[in-house]
Formats: sequence, C-alpha cells, structure tokens
Amino acid sequence: MEQKHMLKVGFVGLGAMGEGMVSKLLTAGFPVVVYNRSAGKVAPLLAKGATQAGTPRAAAEASDVLITMLSNDAVLERVTGGEDGVLAGLASGAIHLSMSTVAPDTSRKLAASHTAQGAHYLAAPVFGRPEMAATKKLWICTSGDVAAIERVRPVLEAMSQGIFSFGEDAGAANIVKLSGNFMIASCVEVMAEVATLAEKNGIAPEAVLGMLTSTIFACPMYQRYSSLILTQDYEPGFKLSLGFKDMNLIQSVALKSETPMPFLSVVQQRFLAAMAEGRADQDWSSIALNSRADAGLPYARFA
Amino acid sequence: MEQKHMLKVGFVGLGAMGEGMVSKLLTAGFPVVVYNRSAGKVAPLLAKGATQAGTPRAAAEASDVLITMLSNDAVLERVTGGEDGVLAGLASGAIHLSMSTVAPDTSRKLAASHTAQGAHYLAAPVFGRPEMAATKKLWICTSGDVAAIERVRPVLEAMSQGIFSFGEDAGAANIVKLSGNFMIASCVEVMAEVATLAEKNGIAPEAVLGMLTSTIFACPMYQRYSSLILTQDYEPGFKLSLGFKDMNLIQSVALKSETPMPFLSVVQQRFLAAMAEGRADQDWSSIALNSRADAGLPYARFA
Amino acid sequence: MEQKHMLKVGFVGLGAMGEGMVSKLLTAGFPVVVYNRSAGKVAPLLAKGATQAGTPRAAAEASDVLITMLSNDAVLERVTGGEDGVLAGLASGAIHLSMSTVAPDTSRKLAASHTAQGAHYLAAPVFGRPEMAATKKLWICTSGDVAAIERVRPVLEAMSQGIFSFGEDAGAANIVKLSGNFMIASCVEVMAEVATLAEKNGIAPEAVLGMLTSTIFACPMYQRYSSLILTQDYEPGFKLSLGFKDMNLIQSVALKSETPMPFLSVVQQRFLAAMAEGRADQDWSSIALNSRADAGLPYARFA
Amino acid sequence: MEQKHMLKVGFVGLGAMGEGMVSKLLTAGFPVVVYNRSAGKVAPLLAKGATQAGTPRAAAEASDVLITMLSNDAVLERVTGGEDGVLAGLASGAIHLSMSTVAPDTSRKLAASHTAQGAHYLAAPVFGRPEMAATKKLWICTSGDVAAIERVRPVLEAMSQGIFSFGEDAGAANIVKLSGNFMIASCVEVMAEVATLAEKNGIAPEAVLGMLTSTIFACPMYQRYSSLILTQDYEPGFKLSLGFKDMNLIQSVALKSETPMPFLSVVQQRFLAAMAEGRADQDWSSIALNSRADAGLPYARFA
Repeated sequence: MEQKHMLKVGFVGLGAMGEGMVSKLLTAGFPVVVYNRSAGKVAPLLAKGATQAGTPRAAAEASDVLITMLSNDAVLERVTGGEDGVLAGLASGAIHLSMSTVAPDTSRKLAASHTAQGAHYLAAPVFGRPEMAATKKLWICTSGDVAAIERVRPVLEAMSQGIFSFGEDAGAANIVKLSGNFMIASCVEVMAEVATLAEKNGIAPEAVLGMLTSTIFACPMYQRYSSLILTQDYEPGFKLSLGFKDMNLIQSVALKSETPMPFLSVVQQRFLAAMAEGRADQDWSSIALNSRADAGLPYARFA
Repeated sequence: MEQKHMLKVGFVGLGAMGEGMVSKLLTAGFPVVVYNRSAGKVAPLLAKGATQAGTPRAAAEASDVLITMLSNDAVLERVTGGEDGVLAGLASGAIHLSMSTVAPDTSRKLAASHTAQGAHYLAAPVFGRPEMAATKKLWICTSGDVAAIERVRPVLEAMSQGIFSFGEDAGAANIVKLSGNFMIASCVEVMAEVATLAEKNGIAPEAVLGMLTSTIFACPMYQRYSSLILTQDYEPGFKLSLGFKDMNLIQSVALKSETPMPFLSVVQQRFLAAMAEGRADQDWSSIALNSRADAGLPYARFA
Repeated sequence: MEQKHMLKVGFVGLGAMGEGMVSKLLTAGFPVVVYNRSAGKVAPLLAKGATQAGTPRAAAEASDVLITMLSNDAVLERVTGGEDGVLAGLASGAIHLSMSTVAPDTSRKLAASHTAQGAHYLAAPVFGRPEMAATKKLWICTSGDVAAIERVRPVLEAMSQGIFSFGEDAGAANIVKLSGNFMIASCVEVMAEVATLAEKNGIAPEAVLGMLTSTIFACPMYQRYSSLILTQDYEPGFKLSLGFKDMNLIQSVALKSETPMPFLSVVQQRFLAAMAEGRADQDWSSIALNSRADAGLPYARFA
Repeated sequence: MEQKHMLKVGFVGLGAMGEGMVSKLLTAGFPVVVYNRSAGKVAPLLAKGATQAGTPRAAAEASDVLITMLSNDAVLERVTGGEDGVLAGLASGAIHLSMSTVAPDTSRKLAASHTAQGAHYLAAPVFGRPEMAATKKLWICTSGDVAAIERVRPVLEAMSQGIFSFGEDAGAANIVKLSGNFMIASCVEVMAEVATLAEKNGIAPEAVLGMLTSTIFACPMYQRYSSLILTQDYEPGFKLSLGFKDMNLIQSVALKSETPMPFLSVVQQRFLAAMAEGRADQDWSSIALNSRADAGLPYARFA
C-alpha cells in the first residue's frame, strides 16, 4: 500500500466536482499538482498541500497520472491537444485519466492519439454530485487498457465508493455514464407525469410520490428527485444545459449503433422545450415543469 | 387488540394473491369465510381454519368486512351486483374492501351504490407479487370513508408491511395503484433501452444494468426487473395482458383529467405490440423484447 | 330517376352540417320531414318545403330513410332508443342512415338492434365542412347491408360529390372516417412542426408552407390547414373538443385491434394539452399552437 | 434570352438525378462541362454535346456556374476543397450552385469560404425523383446572395418547373428541403398506420387509402406513396439510408434551434429500426413495414 502513494497525480479542471476530488486525493496522501484556467479555485487546494502548474502540459509533465474533469468534449479536446496541452506533457507510459462526461467517440479518438505517443488514455466518468465528491461517495465507470486501469486503481479508490470496469474499448465507460444519466432523466419524467396526474385528479403529489419512493422505488435517485420535483427547488445541482448535452450525446450513440430508444426521444423533447424557454441554467430536474405546462397547470405549485 | 379479532372477514377471489392473503388473515386470528368460483383453491384454506360460503352474498352476510380480490372491473362488478352478489349480502354499516386493481370510476360508482344501501365501499389495491402476499410483505393503498378505513386497519395490517391512505375519494387509491404500475412498466422500458444500446455497442448488458442497479438505482424494482430482462425469464408473475389493461385504465384517467403523459404513450405502444404478437400470457416485463426487435436483435439472447 | 323521389326522407339533427344536407335533399326533390331538439333551426327548412315531426320516432314513422346527423355516440344512442326514438318508428325494411362520426362499435351494436326489428342500420359518415354540405361537395363513406346501400344511393348522391362503400360490417365506414380525421390532424401537426422550425431559424413560415403546399403537397387539406395555421384563424370550423373525441375513438379501435399507432399517440397528446388549456372551442387546427409553445414562441404570431 | 446561353455551366456529380439535369441544360442550349468520379456515366452526355473535365477544379475553371449534385455533406466538402477541388477553380465572381441535400451549416460554412475567395455559393436543393429531373419537372429551393440567384435563374429554369427563393442565408434552402423530406416521410408514416389499422380490422387498405388519396388527400405525394405502400414495391427510388441521413440532418437543425418536433422523433425511430434490420438499400417508403411488424402482421402482404 505504500507503493500507491508513489503515484504523482496531476489534475486539470477544478469545478464543483474537481475540488472535492482533489481534496480526497490529498487526504489519501497522493502528491497532487493542479491546473485551472481561473486561479480562484486553486488557493484552497494549495493550502491543503497541492502544488500548482502553469499549463496542462506542465501538470502532465509532473505526473504519472493526469486527471481531467471538464465540462464537455470541446474543452477536453482543447486542453488535451496543442503545444501546452496534456498530451504534449505525458511521459511514455503515463496515463491520462479522463473523468469528464463526453462522447464515446471522443474517448476513442483520444485513446488512439495517446497510444500513438506511448501514453494511455482511460475513460473514467463518475456518478455523483459535488457533495458526493467531497465525501468520497462517487461511483466510477472505467474503460480502456486493463493494465493501466489496475495501475490507477489506488487513485480511483481514493475518490470513490465503488469502481466498475467495462473493458478495453475506451468509449464503453462513456456509454455507461450516458446511459445512467438517461435513466435518471427518465426517472424524473415518469415521476413528473405521475405527480401531474395526481394533482389533476385532486390527490396530493406528495402523498403519491411519498408512498412510491418509500416502498417499491425506495432508492436514492427516486427520493432525491421526487423531492426536487415536489419542492420545485431548481437551483442547479446539475445544469439543464448539461443534461441536454448528455441526451444529445447518447442519442448520437443510438443513431450510430442503429438503436431506437423511444423514451430517449421523449426526454430529449422535454429538454428541448425547457431550453427553448430559457431554462438552461436551472437544475435538469426542472424538465418536470413541462409536464405541468402540458397539463394546463401553472409552473409554480405554491403561490 | 383483542377487539380487532372480533371482525369477521369474508374473502371473494382466491387467485395467486388471494390465497396468501387469506392465510395471513387466518394466522392473525381472524375468522374468515371464503368464496371462490372454482372449488379447488378452497380446500387448503379450509384446512387452515377458513369456512366456505356458497355465494358472494352468503360470504358478505357472514362478514363485517368483505374483501374482493379479482382480476378486473367486469368481474368485480359481476360479483358485487345481482341477487347473489356482495352488495345484496352486506349488513348496514358493513364494509366492502375492494383490493383489486380497477378503474377509479368503477370504485366511485360502487362507492355510491354501497352508500345508497348503508354499506361502505373502500378501495384498497395492493403492491406486491404472490410471494409477497404469502409473507405479509404487501403494500396497501386505501381510499374512501376515513372512519371505515380505521375500522378495517387491523385487517389491512394482518396482510401487509405498510398502509397508505389517500383520502375520501374512493377512486384515489386506484389512481395511485395504476400510477405505480405505470412507473414499474417505465422502469422496464428504460432498462430495456439501455440493455439494447449496450448490446449493440459491444458492452455486456449485465455489466451496465448490474452496475446501475447496485448503485444509483439500488431498489427492489430495478433489481428484480433487470434480472428478468437479462435472463429473459418471462414466466408470468404478472401477465402482460393485465399490464396492458392497467396501462389502458390509467390512460383513461389521463384522458378524462386532460393530462398528457408521453412516457405512458410509449409504454402503451409496447404493450400493444407485444399483445399483437400473441405474448399476452408472458410476464409483462417481456415488453423488453420489443426494444430488441426494433434494434434488429433476435429475441433470444442465448442460443 | 323518377323512382328515387319516391323515397321519403326523415332527418334528425340540424346542426351546421344538417342544414345544408337537408337543403340539398329538398333541391333534389325528396320529401323531407325534419326533427330537431331546438326549434330555431327548423323554420328556414320548412320555408323551403320540409315538414316537421314532433319526435324522432314520428320522423321515422313518416320515412323510408331516416337520417341522423348528431354530435356524438351518446346523443345518437339516446335519439335512436326509447319510446320516442328512431328505432321505435322505423317500419319493417326501413333504413336508418347514420351519418354521424361515431365509434364502429356503436354502429355494430345499433346495426344488430335494427336487424332484430326488421329494419336496417347503415353507417354513412361524411368528409366536409358546413360550406361543403351546402354545396353538395361532401364525400360519403358507407358500410352495412349492401342492398340497403343501393336503395339509399339516390339520397346519398343528392348530398355529395362521391360515395365510397366499405362492405357489410356496419362499423367499417366509421373506421375509415376516423382514419381520415386522424390523417387531417397529422397533416396539421407536421405543418405546425415545420412552421415552427422555420420561424426559429429565421425563415418565413409562409414561404416554406406556401412552397410545399403549392408543389408536392398541393391538395386541399394542406392548403386549407396551412392557411389556418399561418393566419392563426381558430374560429371553429370543427371544434377541438370534437377532434379530441375522434382521436380517442380511433385509439379505442387501435387498442382493441392491437395496432400500435405512434403518430396517433403524438396527436392525442396535442389535443390533450390543448384541452387542458381550455381551448376546446377553438378550431381543432389550433393544436398547432402547442408546437409553438414547446419551442418557446408566443402563441400570437402577430402583435 | 440570347444572353442566358452565354453562361458556361460546369456539372459535378452524375448520379440518377444529375444525368437528367445535364440533359435538360444541353437541351436549353447551355454549354456544359461535366466531371464524374466514375467515367461510365459521362459518355452518353458527351454524345449529347457536353464536354468533359478531368477534375472538379478543371470543370470550375471552365464555368461561370458550377453545379454540384452529390450524395452527402462529406462528398460535397471533399469535392469542393483541396487542390483539385471546385473552389480552387472558381474565378472571381463565379457561382457554385450547390444542389445536393446537405445540412444548412455545411452551406453556411461553404458560403463563407467562397465569399473569402470572391466567389459565390448558393444552396439550390431540389424536390423530384430522377424521372422528374429528366422531364424538367423539378422544384428548386434557393438561398444565398440574391443577385447571384438572379444571374443563375436561366440555368435553374432550364431544369425545373418552379423556383422558390428563401433569402440571403445560404442554409435556408437546405432547411426547406429537409422540411419537405420530413413531410414526405410523415405522410408515409401516417398512411402506414392507417393501412395497418384497416387490415387489422378486416377492411381492405386499398379501399381506405384509395378513397382518401382520391378525395381530401388528392395530391401526388399521397398518391405515389400510398401506391408504394400498398404494392410493397420497395425498389429504391430514394434509398432508405439517404432518408435516414436527412431525418438526422433536420434533427440537428431542430436541436440547435431548440425546436421540439415529436413527429420527427417518431419518424426517426422508424428509420432507425429499418436500418437496424438491414433495409438501408430499400426505398425509404419501406418504413411502412415497421408499422406492420409492430402490429404483428407479416411483412409481405401477398404470399
């Protein structure tokens, strides 16, 4: 176990998720060098023992494992490529651990470019909100070179409560992550439809969803999201625009692999309608409002 | 607590669910008189202490609480009405506890006809499969006259692990029950789409659903139905034709209350397609096969 | 041709359609006896030569062919049955020509009850708006006893520009009529989607629909309804609530015959949303507004 | 009119459409230089008076107006760019008339690159099948620089029965073309649903569609496609894979412009299912088969 702490970790992308993840890595004893475009997020982590790099490339040069945690495919590609990018800094045999939610084809393309330079690219997207990152409660999906995954396992363990591997195709873990997000969006939609039906029939939605999420659907996702739907608390935990992006990414996978997914079509329509109304910055669970609108109910449940 | 055992219980409808429910009532010490159209199911319950009535009316005459547990609205109406029916036998103040999954309007109509005769009709549909009935693990939704519900609470407690009340409208509990079944069907559909997408992308569906149902969707419904989908074990626990009936019932509620429900439309299409193929007698989770067919996969995953 | 004028015609139901139809019958020389619940509509027809009956039964008693043109199944059944109803007045061999848009099962049930009394029931629903009725431009679908259809052909010819027969099953013509209405609603929906897409991309919907409905979709339905969509003239030609009823009727046919119809599901959702907003009395083409709402556009195109 | 024949025309892409279009240009007296990747298609046109170029660039160098008629965006971009491409050969002020069905963003990108070199790019996609190209029956949508459109009008007139302009945005005509294809696919879907419903209810689909397409839907699209659906003649006039491409292109427009289009989602599912079954090379109207499959009917109507 001593040995694992020998891995030097670089981290690029200190959003709400990244901060908690770096903290847990430091807690576990890993040396961590961080890079972030905006400096503000860096200071607290330096105080906890991290060091700072001036470019993604510099962070990669100082690391055995370079983690990226970024908002979308374009940012990942920009940070990875170019003269100051991650790939330019990775030593032979070094590992790029890509934890962002991106398209599987982005992972496959980057895996190929890394392999061409003697480095490794692993997809390792996560399930969990910022507070779960801060408390080591993330779930991690991985795919890519199996030996490389084994080498970074101690790093993954320091940030999560569970790790699941999906084989050598670098894109596989991204498909799993997108599938999970689709399932969450679907659980929001189905509860929104039921809540609306209840309200239109004079039954308290709290009673219906309260019963169902404490019995046959007693699991964290149903409980968390039924609460958001019922209280209409749409402060963003995960922005609607990002959820929309993910639905579009999984649909691209569906189109390419010739897989009809009618529930996905419905959910995508909901995101589209919410985006069209200018609700991109609400929490993605606010797609529940569209169910109300369609049924002639005012958005606000409480005056 | 002595007092509760004074309630005499009648029970009409000894299907797979009814048998277990009567057993639990007998275990709890209630005197139970049973009626069933076909005699075969009665003998084991007589051996456990039940007595037998020759008609639904006779069962009602001998009871403070008459329970019906029947397959659909038409059977319930037939058993309730007419010269030999339940309503003809109910004493003033006696209670008809209607535990079948039926339309809310059926409950409302029967509630009115019972009230007109000085009796009570309560809707009390249940969640749970036969093995849950046999082990007192049912969940019960109730609605109707609140005082009457309180009187039958000991009876409900003898059969269940939890009771949820939804107010005075006799139809309310039926809407909740139908909503729950819609949510289950939706959870089957979403997992079917994800399993198909995985398979078409070279990822083992077992790995994807295994991960998701042990983490963010770790609840009994997801675990049970992912298992059925993955093993393609479509021996009927709950027949597809009954699920189809329930989707049609909830859609009637949606149409009447002017509530658009796009997920419900998708699920209803799935049931329609499965019915059209002659799969009415499979388990309702076999709607998952349609997702495979649409994606060009053979029905059988394993040769 | 002399002979056809020998047929005495009764007519029950003087709505916007009925008035024009009776006028054409009178113009063609048929003796017509009319019945209407509200007297106001009757006077102008009496002035043109019609006579008046005090009950549907009386109108039937005075007729070889009794036509009903009513708003829905319930009204048709009420007018047909009972002591003062049509069926009570029909002589042996007389024909009830049912021109309302109703469910095929309603026609089948009524056909059986007529046959039992030695009379005939024919379904003969029409396509066309009131101004088409007034100008003998209706299209008529018929089904039922073929010999009876031949006998009433002169009557049908007096009201229409074309007659199409669909066999002995009395319900068949109703299915065709409902199918046509579904196709019209679908043509509204597809043009609404295209108009909205154009507007959101800075292209004049008038230009897009103008081109398409003058070239590859140059037919009356597309031209009429594109005009209504573009001008947002939703004065009722055919009420949205009636369109909703028809979509529900055809869906019942689809459910019973196990026929998945995904476009129908979409259209039905649109009608539901419009009904939920209180737009039951607009023209049914106003379902186009929902497409705008979903896309974040204001209902009114012109300030 | 003399003047128009002074325009020298280049033509790249001699598919089934291109052949007929070049013939009509020659008939109208335009000098035409053609380029095609495979030589076979060229000979008959040389015999009619065309000349041949060795590269797209050479064709452009010899032309005032260079027409491209290619199968998709990637081919168009490949033929346009590079050392031997169209753009390298266009003189200052020359016009690239892009008649392929491509994404609006492809047109916008190419318009910008042409403008940067002093040339013009116009989008001018067409409606019509090969036999319509051969008989000058095409309909043309145009967008881009208005003065340039006026200059090429004689060329457009030589190939079509009508020209419709959609303004300065080069992508606009592509959106109109994709919208038209979506409307055609929707007309196939709605007729497929109606034909299936009829068949499952014992009514001849020929009778139902025959009536509706000779009355309220009496327009060429409905008549042509109902005939294909009824006879199940799926020899490709327009390949299913190309229709699928177009549905995906228009969906990209819808996603980018935040426009929910539920009918499009349904149609896209149909194409996906057909592609998944390996029917990419059938005529696109064979999506009608999926309606049959969902309803439990065998694909082949006639043994």
